[in-house]
Amino acid sequence: MTDTELPALRLKRGEDRRLRAGHLWVFSNEIDVKHTPLDAFAPGDPVTIEDAQGHALGTGYVNPHSLICARLLSRDRQHPWGPSLLVHRLKVALSLRERLYASPYYRLVHGEGDGLPGLVVDRYGEVLSVQVTTAGIERQLDALLAALDKVVRPATVLLRNDTAIRELEGLERYVRAAQGEPPADIEVEEGGRHFVAPLASGQKTGWFYDQRDNRDRLADFVAGARVLDVFSYVGAWGVRAALSGAREALCVDESQTALDYAARNAALNGVDDRVATRRGDAFEVLRELREAGERFDVVILDPPAFIKRRKDQRAGEQAYRRLNQAGMQLLDRDGFLISCSCSYHLPRDTLVAQMQQAARHLDRELQVLVQGYQSADHPMHPAIPETAYLKVVYGRVHR
Amino acid sequence: MTDTELPALRLKRGEDRRLRAGHLWVFSNEIDVKHTPLDAFAPGDPVTIEDAQGHALGTGYVNPHSLICARLLSRDRQHPWGPSLLVHRLKVALSLRERLYASPYYRLVHGEGDGLPGLVVDRYGEVLSVQVTTAGIERQLDALLAALDKVVRPATVLLRNDTAIRELEGLERYVRAAQGEPPADIEVEEGGRHFVAPLASGQKTGWFYDQRDNRDRLADFVAGARVLDVFSYVGAWGVRAALSGAREALCVDESQTALDYAARNAALNGVDDRVATRRGDAFEVLRELREAGERFDVVILDPPAFIKRRKDQRAGEQAYRRLNQAGMQLLDRDGFLISCSCSYHLPRDTLVAQMQQAARHLDRELQVLVQGYQSADHPMHPAIPETAYLKVVYGRVHR
Repeated sequence: MTDTELPALRLKRGEDRRLRAGHLWVFSNEIDVKHTPLDAFAPGDPVTIEDAQGHALGTGYVNPHSLICARLLSRDRQHPWGPSLLVHRLKVALSLRERLYASPYYRLVHGEGDGLPGLVVDRYGEVLSVQVTTAGIERQLDALLAALDKVVRPATVLLRNDTAIRELEGLERYVRAAQGEPPADIEVEEGGRHFVAPLASGQKTGWFYDQRDNRDRLADFVAGARVLDVFSYVGAWGVRAALSGAREALCVDESQTALDYAARNAALNGVDDRVATRRGDAFEVLRELREAGERFDVVILDPPAFIKRRKDQRAGEQAYRRLNQAGMQLLDRDGFLISCSCSYHLPRDTLVAQMQQAARHLDRELQVLVQGYQSADHPMHPAIPETAYLKVVYGRVHR
Repeated sequence: MTDTELPALRLKRGEDRRLRAGHLWVFSNEIDVKHTPLDAFAPGDPVTIEDAQGHALGTGYVNPHSLICARLLSRDRQHPWGPSLLVHRLKVALSLRERLYASPYYRLVHGEGDGLPGLVVDRYGEVLSVQVTTAGIERQLDALLAALDKVVRPATVLLRNDTAIRELEGLERYVRAAQGEPPADIEVEEGGRHFVAPLASGQKTGWFYDQRDNRDRLADFVAGARVLDVFSYVGAWGVRAALSGAREALCVDESQTALDYAARNAALNGVDDRVATRRGDAFEVLRELREAGERFDVVILDPPAFIKRRKDQRAGEQAYRRLNQAGMQLLDRDGFLISCSCSYHLPRDTLVAQMQQAARHLDRELQVLVQGYQSADHPMHPAIPETAYLKVVYGRVHR
């Protein structure tokens, strides 16, 4: 028996090992359903997770309808999962960001990486964009909003609960303001400069904070360069390249709305004379540029995830390979290819191998200079490889 | 038959595949010795490497006495391995560094990563420290010195040919000046500051350029912090931490000479009031500090390679685990552990796992914030995993 008042969820023999080693997930086939039938729980119920002998491992929440049927939130008997733990975790998360960043523009909570599986919070000054992906967090929504108000005191909170993965937890999809009046645009600070992005209608929560550290590296590579920014979205790479000394940056995206923001961001930072946009499918535009004999000193490829699920693996890998080859073909004799993948299912080594294959195919030499991950406000959980999803490779390609 | 005048070294059927995919090494069991007996070659002989059908793959050099019996230096028939290719490769290497760095302090040539297996050149302004590790490069020593003179025009060239791996190639070990009069100390610029280090008697070639990019990240983590720099050598981490706002840095090393340089570097940069040194075995000093109840906000562990050969694997992994645990125990309630490994044989995931095990053992939570590699002047060869040897993990450890 456990000493908390939460109902128990019992694991089969040996299934406690992964949790003891640091992992936070429990899969439904690991439950001793004779002892604690899963269908006795409602989605989001708080539970004590215990081993086969009934020793408590910690507390968390359950979802009987999900493959990941429970998540461990606390190992500390004095601080079980609930509203006060939420406040504590937010404070711990905030203290890291306040140490890392001079101004309040960052991912404040990154799910498992901050000990809060199922929750993502991006902060844009006084505006918070919140994404809940599990029934366990959804159940605590009022407590979460109170905790955010207590710890961060935001003017506005937008619930950006429209991601497809909510369906795995049986949650409906919606976007709504939980506090204040969400502005159409958010303002972001990055690299000491200001940018705008759409809030409710943007990709992810509006801005890709995960690439900040990788964009900070641009300065070493783009001075005087002609830069191509493929899948530019609102132009963060391209505009920052121009701010870092690029003589020209061309942002390519399929969305005219995104490109309008890119142009606004260029103007906002006084580099609109050096930032151009071009609307179109990335592969199409790359082909057209090649046929027109265009060349660039730096090509940046930051595509959406081509491999969202395992079944996309083969087609997705081919798409990365084709994209990298097409980007490489636009490089001048000696140029830099900055290649990104946010697909967890594409291992870093495979991305490097694909770049290498493309280089060999074009009879060029590839040197790998920098390997980047997601920025420090997206902590990786050391026992959960899935939390390290972003790969960025700065390669030099020469003949 | 090949169209160069170099003698052929023929591979067995199928053994060309790895080379065609981009690798540069040929192992002795891959040679068709009936066709081209290895013992017909002298160590360092230039050769044309050809597949089982006699099609040339490129040119390189051979060493019949080495497990890696040949290395591919050029795939281009117009530019076979020899003095003029050396000049070309040096120019390509130099142009990268001149793009990346404002002043001439960097690794100029990083072996396979720069298409020059067997050669490492570190540049300290007008002083070059050269390390030759294969008979093939040793054979071209005069051409190499002429090429360096032509491309870089150094005042001084020191041949730092005292590394043990030369023995695998049957080369003697020596240190000698090939040009000019080597100074006792070299001056280095890093992060806009100046440092000194011993040239001929120092570790590696004097300064660890490979950690520059990782030290550049310190500023985000050390403001106002008490920092412990374990295996400090000449104090690069500790002094840069103090320069980045640490209120105190303690450098620990077994070598008094190294610590004297650390103290000099602190004084040179006006932070000697905030940098202290302590001589002793790292594990001993960590234990003493723990027993004395000392606590730090940031602990940096940058040990020498604990796993030099496969047979050291188990003991080496245990040493990393013990070191990380000892470092973690000295952290305050919420601190940063910066853990490095330059052992190629320790995979990155294993280092992270060991940090995680140490954290679980101490009932602490580990977040992985930053993952670093060797600096950009140490290019990784995308087909040769061994060229990516340095791993740095910035972790946050809290309760």
